Amino acid sequence: MTAFAVDATDGDARTGTLVTVHGPVRTPAFMPVGTHATVKALHPDEVRATGVDILLCNAYHLALRPGIDLIERAGGLHRFMDWEHPILTDSGGYQLVSLVEVATVDDDGAVFVSPYDGSRLRVTPEDAVSNQARLGADVLMCLDHPVAHGTAPDAARAATERTHRWAERCRAAHPGDGRLLFGIAQGGFDADARAASARFISGLDFDGVAIGGLSVGEPVDTMLAMTAASVAELAPGRPRYFMGLGTDSELLAAVALGVDMFDCVVPTRLARNGSALTPCGRVSLRNAAAREDFGPIDPDCPCAACAGFSRAYLRHLFQSGEILAHRMVSLHNITHLARLMDAARVAIREGCFAEFRAERDGRLLSAPR
Amino acid sequence: MTAFAVDATDGDARTGTLVTVHGPVRTPAFMPVGTHATVKALHPDEVRATGVDILLCNAYHLALRPGIDLIERAGGLHRFMDWEHPILTDSGGYQLVSLVEVATVDDDGAVFVSPYDGSRLRVTPEDAVSNQARLGADVLMCLDHPVAHGTAPDAARAATERTHRWAERCRAAHPGDGRLLFGIAQGGFDADARAASARFISGLDFDGVAIGGLSVGEPVDTMLAMTAASVAELAPGRPRYFMGLGTDSELLAAVALGVDMFDCVVPTRLARNGSALTPCGRVSLRNAAAREDFGPIDPDCPCAACAGFSRAYLRHLFQSGEILAHRMVSLHNITHLARLMDAARVAIREGCFAEFRAERDGRLLSAPR
Repeated sequence: MTAFAVDATDGDARTGTLVTVHGPVRTPAFMPVGTHATVKALHPDEVRATGVDILLCNAYHLALRPGIDLIERAGGLHRFMDWEHPILTDSGGYQLVSLVEVATVDDDGAVFVSPYDGSRLRVTPEDAVSNQARLGADVLMCLDHPVAHGTAPDAARAATERTHRWAERCRAAHPGDGRLLFGIAQGGFDADARAASARFISGLDFDGVAIGGLSVGEPVDTMLAMTAASVAELAPGRPRYFMGLGTDSELLAAVALGVDMFDCVVPTRLARNGSALTPCGRVSLRNAAAREDFGPIDPDCPCAACAGFSRAYLRHLFQSGEILAHRMVSLHNITHLARLMDAARVAIREGCFAEFRAERDGRLLSAPR
Repeated sequence: MTAFAVDATDGDARTGTLVTVHGPVRTPAFMPVGTHATVKALHPDEVRATGVDILLCNAYHLALRPGIDLIERAGGLHRFMDWEHPILTDSGGYQLVSLVEVATVDDDGAVFVSPYDGSRLRVTPEDAVSNQARLGADVLMCLDHPVAHGTAPDAARAATERTHRWAERCRAAHPGDGRLLFGIAQGGFDADARAASARFISGLDFDGVAIGGLSVGEPVDTMLAMTAASVAELAPGRPRYFMGLGTDSELLAAVALGVDMFDCVVPTRLARNGSALTPCGRVSLRNAAAREDFGPIDPDCPCAACAGFSRAYLRHLFQSGEILAHRMVSLHNITHLARLMDAARVAIREGCFAEFRAERDGRLLSAPR
């Protein structure tokens, strides 16, 4: 069985469909992040209305709170959070870089220290897969060992090799049952190491492969070079997922290289700070310029924020510390990225992705800042 | 023209309809509070879906931020906040008790000091009416001078007399144009003074009369005695509004006395603290008891929170500091009070309000705490 089909290509860019137990995911796809089993500030029906097919939750965070057992008893993650569409869960690997609460990492696995109560949580590659399967995720991610930008080459190499050993163990623990398991390629910031890691992970015949450990502070050129080196070694018939990317022009650059899936906290994090995404760049709704702007964030956007409210009203809500502001801009920002992916899919199908990308990049570059 | 019609009575309780330019208000009515032109955490479509017909905004707060001019230029308060149904605005009188930022109060009016930027805002009775009319409110409230519970009788009497002089000036400033202007009766905590104030205000032929300065810390028996003394002097053909009441059994007690309208911040404030209203009393969703409770807040409630989410999930959201928790419990709590008013209207129409009230009070009293 094959869960992924490429429907059309345009250069290296492609559009396709990933079939999961909870429905199809149209690619290129942007996945909003719901770390704690909720996309910050949004109701699941609103998330769906943005046009996204799939969201990301974090099995590591959910294992700490409220616990895998509890969600399993609640009927699984979909039912717990009332989202009946596809869910991809991250394994916790990324937390080996981003969290300070890691007690030990060795070949057996990682021991985390809960930031909530100081308790310890041991996660082996097998645990990571089992936890995600018990949550009921549609797409499970291997436990990997990424490294921070600037890590010494020897340490980066060792982490990539560990990622490979863990990937083999995760692959052996594939739960089947219709769930999809994605490997994660690493390789630090060396193109040869990236290519080798992608080749190794691709050879384990996962349902898809993620490119991990990028967009962590390196220059954009480096990021794209590492992506290209990885993609070149990946099987064309499997989905490719760039972990942690969420700005318009970088998303389109990665789509151009043949990447199919993305996730990022940027749209909700920016929203919290009053920053709205538009085809002409970011707009700060806290700025005085919005005070008497009675137009919407984006007149072409069909979201509830743009349909109902002016920039002046949203600014008033931010000034007053009102939650509706955070809600509406989160909704808008995710809608913006969902529509960007939708437009990319159409452009690829119509064979004009390069023109589409150039037009979008041009609007971003020419916008007044 | 008469904007209010009593459709049925049952003892002193009555059900009726207040007609405004933006639609009818079925009474008894609960009005959620949207101080800053937003009911905290909720989208206006959600507020409407709770079953309420009208909401309350605060002209004093809106005059300070974002300013009456700005809202007027935005097309008025309804358009600014995207709520096309009735709006009642409070004048700022209540802030003479609740705010510390009052510079001076004399017969001419009050001078407020903005808590946001220290600027001074002078509000005369005429300003209060004019500000509310410029906002586009359907129901405008007079500027009044309430006093805190425990105020010396002389000071209470002076404030009530000032309230009467201000009421005459507000009445003379009635903007017409389909807008309704309500007087506010005071009288402190003396039944004779309450009766005299209600008689005076009722004599000014407002479109409705509010009972102000109660539910500010006095015993419930006192509150109800003051309410009864006031209602006895009010014209039966005009709506009666108890300012600031929002708990089930007190609402039903006031309805039994013939009160038609209510507002309160309690449902949204409780929600923020994780406390949900049910026919059996308040439930704290932060308590350990909710941890593995996979049922909804109230199985009989049709709101989105009860339709989609378990108490266990909502508790997880509160534990994680997630906004969706605040949203969902706000939605539920307002729905709860809207349904209470709806059930009261039905019971009055069917002539069984006393039985209905006894049954509801019985469930509250017999509930395990």
